[in-house]
Amino acid sequence: MNRLKKVSLEKKVVTQNDRIASSNRKAFAKMGSFVINMVSSPGSGKTSLIEQTVTHLQDEVEILVITGDLMTDNDARRIQRLGVDAFQITTGDACHLDARMVSKVIKERSNERYDLVIIENVGNLVCPASFDLGEHAKVLLVSVTEGDDKPLKYPPMVNASKVLVVSKIDLIPFVESDPEMIIDSAHRINPDLVTFKLSSKTGEGIDQWIGWLRSEMEKKK
Amino acid sequence: MNRLKKVSLEKKVVTQNDRIASSNRKAFAKMGSFVINMVSSPGSGKTSLIEQTVTHLQDEVEILVITGDLMTDNDARRIQRLGVDAFQITTGDACHLDARMVSKVIKERSNERYDLVIIENVGNLVCPASFDLGEHAKVLLVSVTEGDDKPLKYPPMVNASKVLVVSKIDLIPFVESDPEMIIDSAHRINPDLVTFKLSSKTGEGIDQWIGWLRSEMEKKK
Repeated sequence: MNRLKKVSLEKKVVTQNDRIASSNRKAFAKMGSFVINMVSSPGSGKTSLIEQTVTHLQDEVEILVITGDLMTDNDARRIQRLGVDAFQITTGDACHLDARMVSKVIKERSNERYDLVIIENVGNLVCPASFDLGEHAKVLLVSVTEGDDKPLKYPPMVNASKVLVVSKIDLIPFVESDPEMIIDSAHRINPDLVTFKLSSKTGEGIDQWIGWLRSEMEKKK
Repeated sequence: MNRLKKVSLEKKVVTQNDRIASSNRKAFAKMGSFVINMVSSPGSGKTSLIEQTVTHLQDEVEILVITGDLMTDNDARRIQRLGVDAFQITTGDACHLDARMVSKVIKERSNERYDLVIIENVGNLVCPASFDLGEHAKVLLVSVTEGDDKPLKYPPMVNASKVLVVSKIDLIPFVESDPEMIIDSAHRINPDLVTFKLSSKTGEGIDQWIGWLRSEMEKKK
């Protein structure tokens, strides 16, 4: 297959996805939801941050969590234990969630009202960048253990995101990391990124993150 | 595009890749090389382990390093500083190296003899699993900071690999990780995996890894 054919095929897949994403977005609007799509390398702490977020917000708002993995429903089970609605999508060998997968969950819950929908994508710093799920913001996590040059090495994901969370800042003393370098290099690619530094383990920085979610949910009311 | 068309197209791309990979393998045999393809999440410590490996072996054997990233030549420059041949492949938006990209480097170096060729794939725990580059072994790194359930969540990569390296074991005291759980869960998917636990920072476990590389290189002589 030559390059041209490959590109036009990718374009077709993405266009089809965008159509479904747009209908997801309308469905989320009906539900009154603010929707984030959390993307990162495997093991950057997406599920831990979701646990913290649910714990902080579940008494004041309705939350739906959709988790994506190739295999296992570990993440959904972790979230369900907290007492909120959580659905697992297993993708088999697919390297990202797509809008159609998410639309199936929406159909099941279309009569509910959620203030906040958190989608946890497959751990992958490349493929999820091209796939709109109908979210309002992609939230990119980069942990301090991954090396400060990750944003420069993976620019498409930085460009596709509205928010950058530098995670696991409790580990800074034990790794060579400067969170400001991570943020600076990301801002060179995408100057509009809203940024947070936090640790889901110690709770440091979580309040700012929760504050941002509250203000975004307020806008959707 | 329906699922059937997508699957048959993926199959075609992989078949084409396999043909080039097979010719890469012949070229590597001519060069007298043992070839590893290092795969992992972004930031699991592939480049650091390559630096350690080069430092330990460069006085006794000839080494070629090929590094893959979407963008930047940071990794190749890190390796070149040690005084061995290192080539950077930038993939743009592609989520993995393919055999054709590697074949171009081989063509440039076809008159050289290398005992060890180390290919560092794009940081991605999904896509590189399907693409043979002509290597003798895929070496999968999982760092202790990523969560012990990663092998169960990404079984295709575990199945495609011959070796599992649990990396960054110096960080065990600061994260909740049991390397034996990582290894056990990987062995449940692929019982033949050769495994190592090491830290490129402290040097713990590096000797066993170097010993394995020496014995594999010996077999190619």
